[in-house]
Amino acid sequence: MKLIIDAMGGDNAPGAIVAGAVRGCREQGVFPVFVGDAEKIKAFVPKGFDCRVVHTDDVIEMEDPPMSIIREHRESSMGKGLALLKTEGDAFLSAGSTGALVTGASSRVVFGKTRGIRRAMIASVLPLSNPVLLADSGANLSVDAEELVQFARMGSVYMQKIFGIASPRVALVNNGAEPTKGPEIYREAYALLEDCPDINFVGNAESRDIPLGFCDVAVCDGFVGNVILKLCEGFGKFMGASLKEIFAANPLTKLGGLLTKNKFKDFRARLSSARYGGAPVLGIPKPVIKAHGDSDENAVAAAVGQAKFFFESGICGAIGEFAAKDREENI
Amino acid sequence: MKLIIDAMGGDNAPGAIVAGAVRGCREQGVFPVFVGDAEKIKAFVPKGFDCRVVHTDDVIEMEDPPMSIIREHRESSMGKGLALLKTEGDAFLSAGSTGALVTGASSRVVFGKTRGIRRAMIASVLPLSNPVLLADSGANLSVDAEELVQFARMGSVYMQKIFGIASPRVALVNNGAEPTKGPEIYREAYALLEDCPDINFVGNAESRDIPLGFCDVAVCDGFVGNVILKLCEGFGKFMGASLKEIFAANPLTKLGGLLTKNKFKDFRARLSSARYGGAPVLGIPKPVIKAHGDSDENAVAAAVGQAKFFFESGICGAIGEFAAKDREENI
Repeated sequence: MKLIIDAMGGDNAPGAIVAGAVRGCREQGVFPVFVGDAEKIKAFVPKGFDCRVVHTDDVIEMEDPPMSIIREHRESSMGKGLALLKTEGDAFLSAGSTGALVTGASSRVVFGKTRGIRRAMIASVLPLSNPVLLADSGANLSVDAEELVQFARMGSVYMQKIFGIASPRVALVNNGAEPTKGPEIYREAYALLEDCPDINFVGNAESRDIPLGFCDVAVCDGFVGNVILKLCEGFGKFMGASLKEIFAANPLTKLGGLLTKNKFKDFRARLSSARYGGAPVLGIPKPVIKAHGDSDENAVAAAVGQAKFFFESGICGAIGEFAAKDREENI
Repeated sequence: MKLIIDAMGGDNAPGAIVAGAVRGCREQGVFPVFVGDAEKIKAFVPKGFDCRVVHTDDVIEMEDPPMSIIREHRESSMGKGLALLKTEGDAFLSAGSTGALVTGASSRVVFGKTRGIRRAMIASVLPLSNPVLLADSGANLSVDAEELVQFARMGSVYMQKIFGIASPRVALVNNGAEPTKGPEIYREAYALLEDCPDINFVGNAESRDIPLGFCDVAVCDGFVGNVILKLCEGFGKFMGASLKEIFAANPLTKLGGLLTKNKFKDFRARLSSARYGGAPVLGIPKPVIKAHGDSDENAVAAAVGQAKFFFESGICGAIGEFAAKDREENI
């Protein structure tokens, strides 16, 4: 398996990216193609390690507009990496800008969507009482009902193949349980989802239900999804700070903190956004993993394993199949 | 001060509503007008207590569509209560359906908005590291940029007058800090908010910032607001259940739980959605408080105090003033 790696994306690039990928690729028997500043990359590749380095000077920064990947930054490490994925790669890994990654992956100029898929999305897995795939979690700020249905189906396939859930419970994020709730697009999507034989649609999820195990896939537009994703993150930080304060209050609570230290450590690890690794881009014909921007060496090594599992899972093929049917029906 | 009370709205109506209101009105020197099933109400009013009871058989249930308050349920305890507010009341309190309450309060047929205000909203206060007013928190599922600006100004006035914050920090909920982020309506609202001399606009808030004290007022449409409000609630429940599990794990963690019990109790109370009482309906010329659906006697008694404070705060007048200016400018 040939994994294309954007060596320059992320807060800790290229050091942690290259070192992590070297370790991950060794463990997984994956051949890496690093894209980015060749000299800097080579500084982190051990002597004798089998890989390829494709040089480019250009990098997409977090502040660059997503569209720049198909314009001035087409030759960036991310843009060039996606082009390599198209011609010869099996999977692609980047810790760079999410917006640019989805834009580049979606655009025919750089990579291109699966035929029949209307919008590619980014799908993060929330580490709550159960893993919940948030589909979309930030790529498409406005969508129509049929796009929401495709998000639901892609998310369902992902949770089947990656988490081994036979019949993932798919819910539509909404402001009430009744089918008549929500903006028009959500009401339309509700009716369409009820009629999907390939989806285990469990109805609307009010967001209070999401942390409590109501569904395996939560479907919404990318604006709402981004709000959910980041609010979970913020709430986690807020809880962490609050716990610290509680345990630091006096000698007795300090002792209480000591006695429960390991359990809280486990709990924090369970809630860590790193727990389920990077987020897949779905709706494109090859696996793309968006690693967290702050990924360290360990996270990158884990993401290599994730990319391999994704590649071998058959997800892209399964999405291609239903998309082809959607396409036939719409012709 | 004459407070109109929907005696039939909420899970614990009429018992907890009437008993709580009797206590609250006694404490605050407020005269209550109870609207609902007269016989049932009177069963909870102590002998000699000075109040008025206005009878009606009809009640709006949670499942009833919001619009029913201006149609088949105009004579419900909520509909009739709002009509009484218009003619003679100083403030109104209900624990019934939020949708029906905002619809009735907004509609000229039942009550009616403040002149110059485009949409009335419901504004919940989130009990996070600081109190954060969520404006709108569920009434208006789709809005335009100017409506968002009015939400910002109404929210700012509320936090000034009720929480005594001289210059409330107002943020726009968005998927990134940059002014170019988000759906078009949010980008337009950003530009308008920057030009508002009466608002201390601190820019976009990614939702991860909201629990961590970034702003005093978080502005968004009611769909996103509802997602935030309920996700905070769900996350709180999830944390509560998780803490229970951690402390129950073994004898040592049980001891740890005992040693920190009081601190965690305080913490839970700080995060309780009841901490800041009911949510105000803003954008109408008289104070309306929506108490939680599950309000008990204590919550209702507290809501009476809240309604009195709201009445005396001058918020409705201050909103009326800027709305009148908006109206002149748009004529």
